[in-house]
Amino acid sequence: MNTAILHLIPNFLAEETLHVIPSYIQDIVKNISIFYVEEIKSARRFLKKIDKNINIDALTFHFLNEHEINDLHHAKQYFKDGKTIAYISEAGCAAVADPGAELVSLAHLFHVKVVPHVGPNSILLALMASGFNGQKFLFHGYLPNKQPALTHKIKEIEQHSLKENCTQIFIETPYRNNQVLSELIAHCHAHTKLCVASNLTSVNEKIISCTVAEWRKMDFNFHKIPSVFLLSVSN
Amino acid sequence: MNTAILHLIPNFLAEETLHVIPSYIQDIVKNISIFYVEEIKSARRFLKKIDKNINIDALTFHFLNEHEINDLHHAKQYFKDGKTIAYISEAGCAAVADPGAELVSLAHLFHVKVVPHVGPNSILLALMASGFNGQKFLFHGYLPNKQPALTHKIKEIEQHSLKENCTQIFIETPYRNNQVLSELIAHCHAHTKLCVASNLTSVNEKIISCTVAEWRKMDFNFHKIPSVFLLSVSN
Repeated sequence: MNTAILHLIPNFLAEETLHVIPSYIQDIVKNISIFYVEEIKSARRFLKKIDKNINIDALTFHFLNEHEINDLHHAKQYFKDGKTIAYISEAGCAAVADPGAELVSLAHLFHVKVVPHVGPNSILLALMASGFNGQKFLFHGYLPNKQPALTHKIKEIEQHSLKENCTQIFIETPYRNNQVLSELIAHCHAHTKLCVASNLTSVNEKIISCTVAEWRKMDFNFHKIPSVFLLSVSN
Repeated sequence: MNTAILHLIPNFLAEETLHVIPSYIQDIVKNISIFYVEEIKSARRFLKKIDKNINIDALTFHFLNEHEINDLHHAKQYFKDGKTIAYISEAGCAAVADPGAELVSLAHLFHVKVVPHVGPNSILLALMASGFNGQKFLFHGYLPNKQPALTHKIKEIEQHSLKENCTQIFIETPYRNNQVLSELIAHCHAHTKLCVASNLTSVNEKIISCTVAEWRKMDFNFHKIPSVFLLSVSN
C-alpha cells in the first residue's frame, strides 16, 4: 500500500460560518502543506480562518478547476513520493457538485488512501430540510439554460419524480435563480412540491417548501442568493 | 410565522466518533427537551456523548420509524404551541436514507422553521471518496433483494450511468453485502467502476474504488460491515 494520503477537506458555504466545520479537521489541515484548490482566494480565506497564524506563503497550491488545463502531473509525483496532500473545495464538500473527482480517481489508481471529511454540503442540507423523500433522490447539477430544452427537462424530471417517487435536486447560476423558479412554477403541476433552500448555514438561511399552487401566490426573490432547488411529486 | 423550530440533528456513523459532529450542535441539543428519534437506544447514547451530565429522564422522546404507526399528533401540538423540538437520526443525517421526511413536511405545513444541521452522512462521504462523477448522482436506497429483479436492476443502473454519466449509489442490509457485491461483479462489465466505502469515519474506514475486472481478482469480506456501494461507467 502506498503511504501517501489524500484528504478531502470541506469548506464553509457562507462567510463567518467556521462553526460548521468539525474541529478535528482543523488539526488535520494544520499539518498539511500541499493543497489542491479550486480558487486560491477562497482557500486562503478558509486556511486563515482555520489558523490565523498560518504562513500561507510556505504552502504549495495547485489549481483544480474547470477552466485550467491540469494534467495532475504534480499529484502523480506526490502520490509516488508518499506525500500527504489535501483538496479543499471552494464551498461545501470536496468533489460533490464540484470538480475534483479526477484527483480522487488518480489517488485510487495509485492505491493512495483517500480520506473524506465531514462538513457542510448544500445538497444534503437542502434534502434534509425539504421534507421530500430522502430514500431515493437524483442530483442533476444544472438544468439546461435555454428553451425549449429547459421546459422539456422540467417536465421530464417531474414525471421521473412521480414514477419513481424520487426527489429531484438541482442548482442554478445564482443570477438566474428567479428565472428558473418562474419556469418551474409555470410548467409544473399545481400539486407538485417545490423547495428552495437558500443561504444555507448562514444567519440568512431560508427554506421554503410547498406546492407549486402556493408558490404561484407568493412573492419571491432569490436573485444572486446561493440556492438549491428540489422538486417532488408524491405518488 | 409560527415561532416553533424543528432542528434536524445528525448522529455519528460509528461508535466513539463524536469528533465528526460540529460542536455548535452540542450547544443546540443541550437546550432542547423534546426529541423525535428512530431508536431510543442510539438517541440516548448520542445525547450522553454530547453531554455526560444530561438528565435523560427529564426529556420527552417520540418514535419516528417505519415500524410504528405514528400520526404525529404530538408534533402538531408542539408546532401549534410554538415549541422547539429536534429530530435525531439513528446514524448520519436526519431524514436522508432514513424515515423523518413526514415530520419535516408537517413542519412546513405549519410554517415552522426547519433547521438542518451539518454532520456525517455515509452517502455523501462515499461519493466524495469514490472518485466518481459528483456533478450528477442518483441514490437508490436498497436494490431489489430477489432474483431476477436484482440482476435486472444492476443492468438498468449500469446503463443509466453510461447514458447519463450519472454515479449510482445504493446500500444493502449489512449481512447481505457480500452477496450484492458478488452479483455486481458477476453482472457488470469488466470496465465498470465499483466503489465500496465501509466503516466510514471510524478507525476501520476502508474505501476501495476500482474496475469490476480488478474486483474479480480480489478477496473481499464486507459481511455485516456498514457499507455504501457506488457504480460508475464513464462515457
